[in-house]
Amino acid sequence: MSSERVHRYIDDHRDEALDVLATLVRQPSISAQGVGIEACAALLAGLLRDAGIAAEVVPTATRPVVLGEVRRDPAAYTLLCYGHYDVQPPEPLELWESPPFEPTIRDGRLYGRGTGDNKGQLIAHVLAARAWLEAGGGPPVNLKFIFEGEEESGSPGLAAFVRAHRERLAADLVYISDGGLHPSGAPVITLGNRGILGVTLVAQGADRDNHSGNKGGVVPNPVWMLVHVLATMVDASGRVLIDGFYDRVRPVGAVEEALLGRLDFDPVAFGRTMGLPEVPMDGPTYWRRIMLEPYVNINGFISGYVGPGSKTIIPSKAECRMDFRLVVDQTTEEIFEKVRAHVVRVDPRVQVLPRGFGAMEPSRTPPDHPAVAVVAQAVRAVRGLEPYVNLCAGGSLPSAVWPRILGADHISVPYANADENNHSPNENLSLERFYDGIHVSAEVFRALGEADRAGALRRRPRTERGDRR
Amino acid sequence: MSSERVHRYIDDHRDEALDVLATLVRQPSISAQGVGIEACAALLAGLLRDAGIAAEVVPTATRPVVLGEVRRDPAAYTLLCYGHYDVQPPEPLELWESPPFEPTIRDGRLYGRGTGDNKGQLIAHVLAARAWLEAGGGPPVNLKFIFEGEEESGSPGLAAFVRAHRERLAADLVYISDGGLHPSGAPVITLGNRGILGVTLVAQGADRDNHSGNKGGVVPNPVWMLVHVLATMVDASGRVLIDGFYDRVRPVGAVEEALLGRLDFDPVAFGRTMGLPEVPMDGPTYWRRIMLEPYVNINGFISGYVGPGSKTIIPSKAECRMDFRLVVDQTTEEIFEKVRAHVVRVDPRVQVLPRGFGAMEPSRTPPDHPAVAVVAQAVRAVRGLEPYVNLCAGGSLPSAVWPRILGADHISVPYANADENNHSPNENLSLERFYDGIHVSAEVFRALGEADRAGALRRRPRTERGDRR
Repeated sequence: MSSERVHRYIDDHRDEALDVLATLVRQPSISAQGVGIEACAALLAGLLRDAGIAAEVVPTATRPVVLGEVRRDPAAYTLLCYGHYDVQPPEPLELWESPPFEPTIRDGRLYGRGTGDNKGQLIAHVLAARAWLEAGGGPPVNLKFIFEGEEESGSPGLAAFVRAHRERLAADLVYISDGGLHPSGAPVITLGNRGILGVTLVAQGADRDNHSGNKGGVVPNPVWMLVHVLATMVDASGRVLIDGFYDRVRPVGAVEEALLGRLDFDPVAFGRTMGLPEVPMDGPTYWRRIMLEPYVNINGFISGYVGPGSKTIIPSKAECRMDFRLVVDQTTEEIFEKVRAHVVRVDPRVQVLPRGFGAMEPSRTPPDHPAVAVVAQAVRAVRGLEPYVNLCAGGSLPSAVWPRILGADHISVPYANADENNHSPNENLSLERFYDGIHVSAEVFRALGEADRAGALRRRPRTERGDRR
Repeated sequence: MSSERVHRYIDDHRDEALDVLATLVRQPSISAQGVGIEACAALLAGLLRDAGIAAEVVPTATRPVVLGEVRRDPAAYTLLCYGHYDVQPPEPLELWESPPFEPTIRDGRLYGRGTGDNKGQLIAHVLAARAWLEAGGGPPVNLKFIFEGEEESGSPGLAAFVRAHRERLAADLVYISDGGLHPSGAPVITLGNRGILGVTLVAQGADRDNHSGNKGGVVPNPVWMLVHVLATMVDASGRVLIDGFYDRVRPVGAVEEALLGRLDFDPVAFGRTMGLPEVPMDGPTYWRRIMLEPYVNINGFISGYVGPGSKTIIPSKAECRMDFRLVVDQTTEEIFEKVRAHVVRVDPRVQVLPRGFGAMEPSRTPPDHPAVAVVAQAVRAVRGLEPYVNLCAGGSLPSAVWPRILGADHISVPYANADENNHSPNENLSLERFYDGIHVSAEVFRALGEADRAGALRRRPRTERGDRR
């Protein structure tokens, strides 16, 4: 097989690739609104079959999953490509320059809901597989595909699905393309996500508001309860004081430190994007805090009367909403228990409740994992640029399902332009970045196959099950 | 002069007294809405003149003040009776059983807005003066009257008015009847009010909300700033940690301790009125905290997103609204400066702003002030019941203007039934309590005159000015 012919095939079939993407974008698939999901899953499975991939729509209790597979050799390296075919709601419609589900080319970009997030990126893997099948004698690794239909709704069924189909999804590595490149256009490799645990603290004083003059001093004030509980949880510098909170946090190694120092940083420009005059720290500190350190956030606090004028009451109730951003090897269950134990000890009148946006575990592939260098080299080969290696995204995605359930590490390489407007009106995907993406996928397949045959890819033992193919 | 004849006169003129009160209640005088104020002031001045009192309506920048005077002897004791002729808005009108400005008798009570708060109480002083003038040869003390028209709007002009008319208002004691008797019907004497200082703390992080995943750890969170500032202001037991906060608080003396122990207390019944299963302290502690100790309250706290669902943001701003309930000899100015100095020291990013409901100084007439026993004896003589002596009301009123500007102490003796429904629909005044009130005023005039002539009333030096009549 020849990767040169594969890349030439991709170049020669740009229009067909664009047609496939436009077909997919034309089909609405709004998971939040339940619009077009089944039709899109069926369409996508058909597109996989058109590419020569065995594909199936698997119904679930929530949104159906599209699975695909190209098996080369049971003994060969297996790559599982993950993506999601559902899209964000397109509203507000009046801000779109062309209708969200009528894919339209302007200035070298395809506009339409889902072009970048995530249809254009997941289909790049499919089109790369097709190029290998049609021009390269078949892909150099076993390929599996899992495209879910509810990522924009928080992937509520993904973990259960992966657990139920563990055997079928078994892989050595999970490959994900989502999100955008660096604003400069430079490529990016992302190795993980922080986890998230939502917690609400509720303090109850009397069962009604009381007059703060007539009763001030004899009725418990729930805001003071929360203030004193919170002040014992995190100190003024942000250090968490909860017993054992940092027990499982990995120390930052030399490889990580070196990578942090190579990341883009500009205290004034970064500050501007956040609404600060400047970020009062250096680059490695900035990135270490986002990528490798947990953060305890308060995202909402309400008590008493906060409207116009004043009300001199002792409020009956106070509520504090928190999100805990966790890093490997913390777990949401462990931290929830530690938070609860802490609060009970400090003030048992304060309730600790898990919060609705769910718990996602932290996950991070080590930067010295041998596949990272292989993928980086493949990206470099296509783009001619050095990728930024993000040790971890600060935000949370359900990426922990791969190591925790499949025992497979994961690497993300976004293909979309940084200004893709995902989740916003006028979502778009640069055509050049789209075609590049197909090349990157094809090259990643090649490079992983080659490295595996050379024995360069250590395969990690399964964490939940020990059996392998 | 004979007090027996005076009391008989009062008993013989109940119907006329009731007519005078009904005339006054029939005239709306809603300061918040600016309804009927001038007409009511003129009507009231006329009623004073009908009683034989020299009276005048004095315009001010806000609501006019009605002044009256009966001078007996320049060398005699001078009592200044304070009240307010303005009333609360009557809404919601549909809950009134008879129209608020059509005084109506039902079941021994006069119903109408302002019957108890405060027209029925202030006119009792006027009718007592009339009784002394017509049946007693003139009142046994010099009498002055000040009835303001904006108490229900927070008395914004009272201090300035009193300062501007200090000479004319000069008095040895200020006598006030407002509020209700003990629920048992027992009389009450109240010697002061806690002060109030409103403060808002505002913490600003970035100038916009940020994503708590993408930026958690590098953007300052204003809720955490407030938590750490607040936790250094007051400890978990309620003890205030601000430097010098307690410097001017008077120690609790033996007389006060004894009076605290004599006050009504029932932990379960009191808890029920506040929405607690029971009040977890003993009676003297309960009353000491409300009457003799300052309290730092948080009446409102808002930050971030607190609606349905969740928003994982680092809020840009957090606001905490506080009211400081102060006791003599704290001052609002002193405490505001101490709060500001404390916050600046702990976290200069947090702003300290004075809050709209204004500052009222604490004020408290000592329970061993010789006039207290005289008034208590007068109350006992009329009612045949031992009065509860409240060292201080927990709530705030502008009573500090009397000692601070006039150098005159003040004593309050409420005349209304406890269920007068002041500020609510179906406000009412028990006719028996109304007639009792006229007797109490008449007896207080008598008793103070007699005690003064016996040399039993120490007169205190002026605090702002030294000159006396």
